[in-house]
Amino acid sequence: MPLRPEIITGIKRADSTVAAELGRFGVATIHEAYGRTGLMHGIRPVTGGVTASGTAVTCLNYAGDNTMIHAALEHCHPGDILVVGVTAPSSHGMFGDLLATSAHALGVRAVILEAAARDARALRAMRFPVWAREISASGTLKVSPGWVNIPVSCGGVIVSPGDVVVADDDGVVAVARDDAEEILGRAAARDAHEEEVRPRFAAGELSLDLGGLRPLVAGLEQGGK
Amino acid sequence: MPLRPEIITGIKRADSTVAAELGRFGVATIHEAYGRTGLMHGIRPVTGGVTASGTAVTCLNYAGDNTMIHAALEHCHPGDILVVGVTAPSSHGMFGDLLATSAHALGVRAVILEAAARDARALRAMRFPVWAREISASGTLKVSPGWVNIPVSCGGVIVSPGDVVVADDDGVVAVARDDAEEILGRAAARDAHEEEVRPRFAAGELSLDLGGLRPLVAGLEQGGK
Amino acid sequence: MPLRPEIITGIKRADSTVAAELGRFGVATIHEAYGRTGLMHGIRPVTGGVTASGTAVTCLNYAGDNTMIHAALEHCHPGDILVVGVTAPSSHGMFGDLLATSAHALGVRAVILEAAARDARALRAMRFPVWAREISASGTLKVSPGWVNIPVSCGGVIVSPGDVVVADDDGVVAVARDDAEEILGRAAARDAHEEEVRPRFAAGELSLDLGGLRPLVAGLEQGGK
Amino acid sequence: MPLRPEIITGIKRADSTVAAELGRFGVATIHEAYGRTGLMHGIRPVTGGVTASGTAVTCLNYAGDNTMIHAALEHCHPGDILVVGVTAPSSHGMFGDLLATSAHALGVRAVILEAAARDARALRAMRFPVWAREISASGTLKVSPGWVNIPVSCGGVIVSPGDVVVADDDGVVAVARDDAEEILGRAAARDAHEEEVRPRFAAGELSLDLGGLRPLVAGLEQGGK
Amino acid sequence: MPLRPEIITGIKRADSTVAAELGRFGVATIHEAYGRTGLMHGIRPVTGGVTASGTAVTCLNYAGDNTMIHAALEHCHPGDILVVGVTAPSSHGMFGDLLATSAHALGVRAVILEAAARDARALRAMRFPVWAREISASGTLKVSPGWVNIPVSCGGVIVSPGDVVVADDDGVVAVARDDAEEILGRAAARDAHEEEVRPRFAAGELSLDLGGLRPLVAGLEQGGK
Amino acid sequence: MPLRPEIITGIKRADSTVAAELGRFGVATIHEAYGRTGLMHGIRPVTGGVTASGTAVTCLNYAGDNTMIHAALEHCHPGDILVVGVTAPSSHGMFGDLLATSAHALGVRAVILEAAARDARALRAMRFPVWAREISASGTLKVSPGWVNIPVSCGGVIVSPGDVVVADDDGVVAVARDDAEEILGRAAARDAHEEEVRPRFAAGELSLDLGGLRPLVAGLEQGGK
Repeated sequence: MPLRPEIITGIKRADSTVAAELGRFGVATIHEAYGRTGLMHGIRPVTGGVTASGTAVTCLNYAGDNTMIHAALEHCHPGDILVVGVTAPSSHGMFGDLLATSAHALGVRAVILEAAARDARALRAMRFPVWAREISASGTLKVSPGWVNIPVSCGGVIVSPGDVVVADDDGVVAVARDDAEEILGRAAARDAHEEEVRPRFAAGELSLDLGGLRPLVAGLEQGGK
Repeated sequence: MPLRPEIITGIKRADSTVAAELGRFGVATIHEAYGRTGLMHGIRPVTGGVTASGTAVTCLNYAGDNTMIHAALEHCHPGDILVVGVTAPSSHGMFGDLLATSAHALGVRAVILEAAARDARALRAMRFPVWAREISASGTLKVSPGWVNIPVSCGGVIVSPGDVVVADDDGVVAVARDDAEEILGRAAARDAHEEEVRPRFAAGELSLDLGGLRPLVAGLEQGGK
Repeated sequence: MPLRPEIITGIKRADSTVAAELGRFGVATIHEAYGRTGLMHGIRPVTGGVTASGTAVTCLNYAGDNTMIHAALEHCHPGDILVVGVTAPSSHGMFGDLLATSAHALGVRAVILEAAARDARALRAMRFPVWAREISASGTLKVSPGWVNIPVSCGGVIVSPGDVVVADDDGVVAVARDDAEEILGRAAARDAHEEEVRPRFAAGELSLDLGGLRPLVAGLEQGGK
Repeated sequence: MPLRPEIITGIKRADSTVAAELGRFGVATIHEAYGRTGLMHGIRPVTGGVTASGTAVTCLNYAGDNTMIHAALEHCHPGDILVVGVTAPSSHGMFGDLLATSAHALGVRAVILEAAARDARALRAMRFPVWAREISASGTLKVSPGWVNIPVSCGGVIVSPGDVVVADDDGVVAVARDDAEEILGRAAARDAHEEEVRPRFAAGELSLDLGGLRPLVAGLEQGGK
Repeated sequence: MPLRPEIITGIKRADSTVAAELGRFGVATIHEAYGRTGLMHGIRPVTGGVTASGTAVTCLNYAGDNTMIHAALEHCHPGDILVVGVTAPSSHGMFGDLLATSAHALGVRAVILEAAARDARALRAMRFPVWAREISASGTLKVSPGWVNIPVSCGGVIVSPGDVVVADDDGVVAVARDDAEEILGRAAARDAHEEEVRPRFAAGELSLDLGGLRPLVAGLEQGGK
Repeated sequence: MPLRPEIITGIKRADSTVAAELGRFGVATIHEAYGRTGLMHGIRPVTGGVTASGTAVTCLNYAGDNTMIHAALEHCHPGDILVVGVTAPSSHGMFGDLLATSAHALGVRAVILEAAARDARALRAMRFPVWAREISASGTLKVSPGWVNIPVSCGGVIVSPGDVVVADDDGVVAVARDDAEEILGRAAARDAHEEEVRPRFAAGELSLDLGGLRPLVAGLEQGGK
């Protein structure tokens, strides 16, 4: 984190087609394709029932102050996802329906908060996609400048500006900008394999056989009691 | 808290029209209008998708014992909201569908619990509005008398009998009886302002400009990387 | 727990009719009928809006490894519920939509996890009933053999293979195999009583009177203030 | 809570001798004597190994802002305990060694925080008694005026100015000003009884007999297995 | 759990010498020797700085009621450890200094609680070993009979009467009665190996080499930046 | 995070004198001097009563696997502090007394874990400084290679290799390598100021006056009640 507040402009984003394509797969598939990494923890869907993908614009706010969300929106392009970090644990409702109206107008695909969202009912009615640590109306100040487009920690994951972010009802996964294309390929392969075996599961074949796990549990069977 | 259990009758309630009018605004708007105070924390919607407002009847129960909910219902008037405190942390399911049938019949608008609710599916089917710390079927005793209509702590907020309570998907806010009218005025003004600026947000204007925040972040921009 | 991994076959199950009948009642009713015991804590609905009942097949997995879910499915009969324990706290997504496809094909009624479920959106679309400590895409290994059909601790409750498990939006309750029939009788009686008094609640009678609680709070009333 | 910030002066305190005498008993004894009420939850010793008692001066701060601790100290008398509430959940370190130096100089006996304390090592070295929700260096602002000497919610308990507060390694208990004398009598009686039975416990007599609990468990014994 | 409360007498205990010998090793060593199982989670030292080992006597109490601790003490032998389960999550202080006086007099080596302990300062002064989920003075009732010497779930681990329990500052581990001797052998071997390699660690040899891990990370080195 | 596991060698460290000098100040002072940033949350002292400072070597491990701690120790220099991240939430005891023996031999000043430490009693006896999210004996695998000396998220803070880390009983703060010298200057100035005002606090002067806060609360006083 730079010592003094700053707003970085002209960031380099992951390819927008790649970001969009990654959104065809679930968070679980991408997380697996990414070597079981990149998954945020404790960041839950507020809107629910939607999948979103896009390129990250990031901001870092002082806990209890949402100034830099306002500042970051100016630097969002259509197709971006705004990822909001905080300098200390926060259960403040940093993002609500008015800001969602603005974000939607600017083409922002989703907002991810290491803090709370507010106006939950209105966000759901608008179907603007939001993920957050919790839901709370708790109010914020607008007095402390922070940072836009520096790497931020969100849900225990470091997100850099331009990374790809995908979110669904399982949570949120971030993929480094330079790895996005490779991960897209892996995710597609993984998904294709899953669709291939699904009918066999549906027909009653066992994952123990399809997954080659039988040797691992061979010889463990004991007569019942 | 009085040393011995007691049931206070004849409480003075906030004006019922004021309480009803406050229900037109969201919890976030009222919390802001109230100087960022009055918001309960950790108390979540059980029913979901509803807004409720009314005047508080309060009760304080021993943890694991819901006797005073039964006692309090007798003192509820149509338009009241029952606010349930406990003497110690509790994850007991103190309120379920039978009591909801009773509360609904008595005109109670909602129940707010510093503990758990049970029969969640039935409560949702009835659409009886309940907010609670959690959902659990965990059973209660009915052996320890407590208090009705004393100030109680719920979600970290002190609620006195007769206060106005408003709840929605963001949580619950309580407004002191004597302040309700002033807060109603402030909330209406705040809401009017929000509706005025919303179309400008929808048209792409920035909150940085509409909220006068630009000076706060002036000079922070750095060429990208 | 046996010292070495093992898979117990030929377990004795509770009567399937009794298990099915218990599913007519809510978790709260059964928990009460069972002397306020048997209720898991912290295990929440993933699918939501469904009730499931069945006979338990259990497995114990190393945290972060879901091998024994695969192994256990082979030993599930139609009408079973798979109860998944772990050797250490785990927020891994041990069960997702592919395994749900398999479980559904095998006639498994529900899966209960002392860990996380993944693919939440797909599980909801399939309406396959799952309860878990949380929802997370976090990936698992398949390297450590564990146990099938030994008693496991799930949500603080000990579940033995063949026990009856009932789950709804309130959570999950387990009833010992040999007690299931007696508890069914008690639950039915309790439910019948509730249906009998419900119209009286709806007509405005007080639970204080219907529940015989009035003596407990007699003499507590004080003039208001 | 009054609508506008205010500092109440000239509060009426519980008798200082009663407050001091209550400090001779542990928190558990007073909590029991007080009818199992008054106990704060989640408020833990920072200094540790000390017991403190005194009369409450209270303040309510905006979360993340400790202005009113500074304001409240001016209104503390020797023998007081400062009880610090917040308007929203806070893990900020609102009180550290410099303020402890000041509080000690003013005769304040202890500080109780519904938030965090900082400078833990220095506080322990000074042996200034502090209880808090957690320990954190997280910094605060000094921009938002709040309240001094209004009732505050701390650890789920409502504390009014002038109440008696007693704290030890078990946590913190608050006793209403007007009840302090009666509770002192009850606690002394309870303590005397405990000291009377302690030698009998030490000599091997059973609490089942000394506490008259044997009838409750009569007939439960079953031959072992 | 048997349907009706009962007290099982005449339990079969693990060999007392084996139990004592296991106490020579730390909880971590035993947990590893036991195949990374048996470790309770969330159960922390109250007394601190002590190691205890013994044979389990168990009891299951209704949350908020400590009747069965009183009942269980009658069935404890010198060398036993009392393991206390609850029917629902509980933060009640179920065990304090008077009961510790009794337990000590009866030769009980330690008490392990799936709930809270109270009188923490006195317990530390007595140096009576206690582990619990938390520390709280919160009071209990004595009205609901429960169970003694049935398997209980504590810290997510199933403990049966007669099992060996070992506890230190890392927490608590339980070893099944019939496995105790084998685990003792394994733990001793493990400990001997650790003492053998410790001087080599102290002399600067790397665990990468001593543990044979170098092949796992071979080829990962990249020139710095 | 690089897509494939890697170990970065030849990192550039902050000046060791600066790192050592920062250790003269408490975590709270440095956090304030750093503009209220850099503070880890939820990372608590295991050893306790010590302050440590040094330059960061980082590693990222799969949750439940401590391979990369072993790998990272090879790259530690005297004066380093090892900062341990994980790919998913973990309560595994990743670091214990044998590794502490090794780290001490290599001149490592402290270990900071976004997970658990084990062998707490031995660590305290050795007085090897460790901070962790919790204490648990829970065992780890050694099968999954990860990363050494990449930026990691620990306690919600991004730590890069070579940064300065300071830890005491308040927790842990990280200062970016290039900012360390400036922050040292600021911390020294802040500390000097504190030492200057401390005698005035001790003499009874009020922080309200010394901190210039009186205007903020002017006019709030109301006659008592």
